[in-house]
Amino acid sequence: MSTLKELALIAGGELIGDARLDITGISEIQNGKQGTITFLGNPLYKKYLPETKASAVLTNDRALLADRNGIVVDNTQLALARLLEYFKPASTRISGIHSTAVIDPSAEIEPDVSIGPHVVIESGVQIGQNSTIEAQVVIGQNSRIGQDCLLYPQVVIYHHCEVGSRTIIHAGTVIGCDGFGFATVDDVHHKIPQNGQVIIGTDVELGANCTIDRGTIGNTTIGDGSKFDNLVHLAHNVKIGRGCLVAGEVGIAGSAVIGDFCVFAGHVGVAPHLTIGDRAVFAAKTGVTKSLPGGKIYAGMPVREIREQNKRDAVMTAVALLKRRMLKLEDKVTKLYQ
Amino acid sequence: MSTLKELALIAGGELIGDARLDITGISEIQNGKQGTITFLGNPLYKKYLPETKASAVLTNDRALLADRNGIVVDNTQLALARLLEYFKPASTRISGIHSTAVIDPSAEIEPDVSIGPHVVIESGVQIGQNSTIEAQVVIGQNSRIGQDCLLYPQVVIYHHCEVGSRTIIHAGTVIGCDGFGFATVDDVHHKIPQNGQVIIGTDVELGANCTIDRGTIGNTTIGDGSKFDNLVHLAHNVKIGRGCLVAGEVGIAGSAVIGDFCVFAGHVGVAPHLTIGDRAVFAAKTGVTKSLPGGKIYAGMPVREIREQNKRDAVMTAVALLKRRMLKLEDKVTKLYQ
Amino acid sequence: MSTLKELALIAGGELIGDARLDITGISEIQNGKQGTITFLGNPLYKKYLPETKASAVLTNDRALLADRNGIVVDNTQLALARLLEYFKPASTRISGIHSTAVIDPSAEIEPDVSIGPHVVIESGVQIGQNSTIEAQVVIGQNSRIGQDCLLYPQVVIYHHCEVGSRTIIHAGTVIGCDGFGFATVDDVHHKIPQNGQVIIGTDVELGANCTIDRGTIGNTTIGDGSKFDNLVHLAHNVKIGRGCLVAGEVGIAGSAVIGDFCVFAGHVGVAPHLTIGDRAVFAAKTGVTKSLPGGKIYAGMPVREIREQNKRDAVMTAVALLKRRMLKLEDKVTKLYQ
Repeated sequence: MSTLKELALIAGGELIGDARLDITGISEIQNGKQGTITFLGNPLYKKYLPETKASAVLTNDRALLADRNGIVVDNTQLALARLLEYFKPASTRISGIHSTAVIDPSAEIEPDVSIGPHVVIESGVQIGQNSTIEAQVVIGQNSRIGQDCLLYPQVVIYHHCEVGSRTIIHAGTVIGCDGFGFATVDDVHHKIPQNGQVIIGTDVELGANCTIDRGTIGNTTIGDGSKFDNLVHLAHNVKIGRGCLVAGEVGIAGSAVIGDFCVFAGHVGVAPHLTIGDRAVFAAKTGVTKSLPGGKIYAGMPVREIREQNKRDAVMTAVALLKRRMLKLEDKVTKLYQ
Repeated sequence: MSTLKELALIAGGELIGDARLDITGISEIQNGKQGTITFLGNPLYKKYLPETKASAVLTNDRALLADRNGIVVDNTQLALARLLEYFKPASTRISGIHSTAVIDPSAEIEPDVSIGPHVVIESGVQIGQNSTIEAQVVIGQNSRIGQDCLLYPQVVIYHHCEVGSRTIIHAGTVIGCDGFGFATVDDVHHKIPQNGQVIIGTDVELGANCTIDRGTIGNTTIGDGSKFDNLVHLAHNVKIGRGCLVAGEVGIAGSAVIGDFCVFAGHVGVAPHLTIGDRAVFAAKTGVTKSLPGGKIYAGMPVREIREQNKRDAVMTAVALLKRRMLKLEDKVTKLYQ
Repeated sequence: MSTLKELALIAGGELIGDARLDITGISEIQNGKQGTITFLGNPLYKKYLPETKASAVLTNDRALLADRNGIVVDNTQLALARLLEYFKPASTRISGIHSTAVIDPSAEIEPDVSIGPHVVIESGVQIGQNSTIEAQVVIGQNSRIGQDCLLYPQVVIYHHCEVGSRTIIHAGTVIGCDGFGFATVDDVHHKIPQNGQVIIGTDVELGANCTIDRGTIGNTTIGDGSKFDNLVHLAHNVKIGRGCLVAGEVGIAGSAVIGDFCVFAGHVGVAPHLTIGDRAVFAAKTGVTKSLPGGKIYAGMPVREIREQNKRDAVMTAVALLKRRMLKLEDKVTKLYQ
């Protein structure tokens, strides 16, 4: 339990109201609980404010508080992140190296690395200081994990891959599986060996059950600070820039080169060998069929700027009407001929 | 082996023909095998009836049988389910607790729970009576599994999640991974801790390699009796009602609230913060971009009622023709001016 | 290190230039490294040829080489596959049966099978000569794996499935999970037992985190020589022909029958009970809503031949213009009436 004043300090915001108010946690505004602080980031949820039972509100708009207790900040999301960190439920992280882990003697494990039950670490692996390798993770030959990484259960990393420091990988994600490459002769698909690597930068987070293929020659790379949601698929030799956000079930085909700070909503697909500029944004389900400059918002299949895509959609609505007008017009013209 | 009469009792249907006919199993109508019973549910397969070698037919239409042996029921699917249960190939379920499982002493395991090889059960976990935890499952701290559950190999359940009784979870599915939440300041994506839980109801079934994110604050929930196919992605704080059917590769974005008895076909995506009414049905690949009332069938990207979507598609076909008529009309009008 | 002459022999091509040139590996043309050979298959990359630092070039076009050193072959991809096999980084394959594997005494393991740490092999399993079962794979009761197979870590194979010889399955893929089948009565979805099998042919490759459902009655089958990318979903009773190529995140619904040598690009979905002819090709994100003859290229949702789909897309672009012309025409006609 903490006072509202303490939370204002943690959140880095301005205290409004009763400094000594006791706050026991955080609740959603639509399920606000007495004794907790709630937050109002998305204006969609403003309608719940009058009725919420939460005792205080975190917001970036002083006016919204009226005579409520609360904390006013510049960036609600960032302040919320700090409060959530503060109220995180206690969970003992694993520590030490579990006796059931199978670790090749040639592996170099730096100090303060935790390794969970049934983990498999093959020859030549390096794991940096203070990293946590949870239950049943497999790390293949000569792969390297940086410092302060967190690999959740059942992550599989094939041989010769690299994961930068402070990177988080969620359960079931596979790094370094073979790219989809075949040389077809007389209807037989001969496997093209996939000799490259996967190189993942620092401060990356990958969701659960993602699949990141290794390069054929050269590498598949994910730049520093990029974040992936669940079930994302990267094909061989894809290059993802820095600070990209990639939502669930996105698939990026072979050798595509994505700039920095791009955003992909769910189910977006990118065709092979394309180049996408920095800060491009793709709406959900976009089919990216050509290389595109950055700094714009795109949508549709095949891809277009979103405003053009929206216009096309509106035109479609107009067409039914157009058809009716056409019938009238033909009728008039016919009469002129008569 | 059983007689047709016995099977009619099991299926809860009316016996037609030879009561003492020996039946050894069930076969598909297009691959009907002598000595087996086949079924005719989907009218698409009626064409195979005259030629099928099956010795009896399960159907809801007495007339179709003509002079064949068979069983007539009201609900073919339900009767088929009963016969399949009866003819299920014997497979010894694991029993007892395998010596290689790593189980924290604080875990509460009720009687008649089976735990397979290399399972990992962390501190404070509770598992209800008669549940089966197959090989290499990981259950994180303080998570609770109900009675009569079946977790297939390599399911991963993070800490503080709940799974209701009689729920089945297929291999590789991840429950309770972090939602995709970041507070971006100056191009740096700061992680928003995901402190909530996943609460799964009773009689739920989740397919293989699904990913169910935990809530940020509050919970991600799946209602009683809902069934998911494989590779489904639920984001943080999604609420799924009771009795929903969610097909393969569907993705539902953060904080979406789905009513009861909704149906999602494959590759459907739902945008964040939407509310969907009870008994809404979504055709494959629908992109749900806005909140929608229940009781209707939807399709398209952006989403529309399916009949409107089909009309738009038909209009598109008409437009090519329209263009040709326009050219003729312009020509005529031009002549009038000359 | 090898001479260019030796590599020409391995690649099965014609040596051009300095036979004794030492080559240490393969590099990408856009990142060409001195002392390596690069390749030029896709004409998109021709622009990098003048500047590449690679010392030799593998190509199917003698003229492109000009006075460079290189190897000329008929099929660049096939020759590249051979060179990549030659330069594959050394990685010691696991050998023997790891002491932590849990293998039922009734399992029949042929000679020269390698089994990694924490593998679980249930009763009645058969594994053919020279197959490799990597760490933490689970093989369920009575399933059979052919000769020379390679199962990467954490593959899960349910009971009563069959995998043909020389088949490769990547990490996290699940074979034989239950199909999505329920008999709904009064809003309750009763499970239809899935009694069938999965039968996978020879020389198949499945990517990471795929899900292949078992048949309800009868089998789900994948024909010889078919190759799947990552995160592919096959529903119950799907039949995939020989030599098909299925890209990432494709989903094929129940009982669909796919011919031989079909190609599915990323995110394609196929509706249930359809029949697709041999050598059909589907562009990315196609929604296959009806049965289709083979030998054609398809696209769109709902599916059409790709040239028709492209025309529709072009017509859409014309429609905005059409609208403007319509306004002018109406104006003219109105004046004629005045």
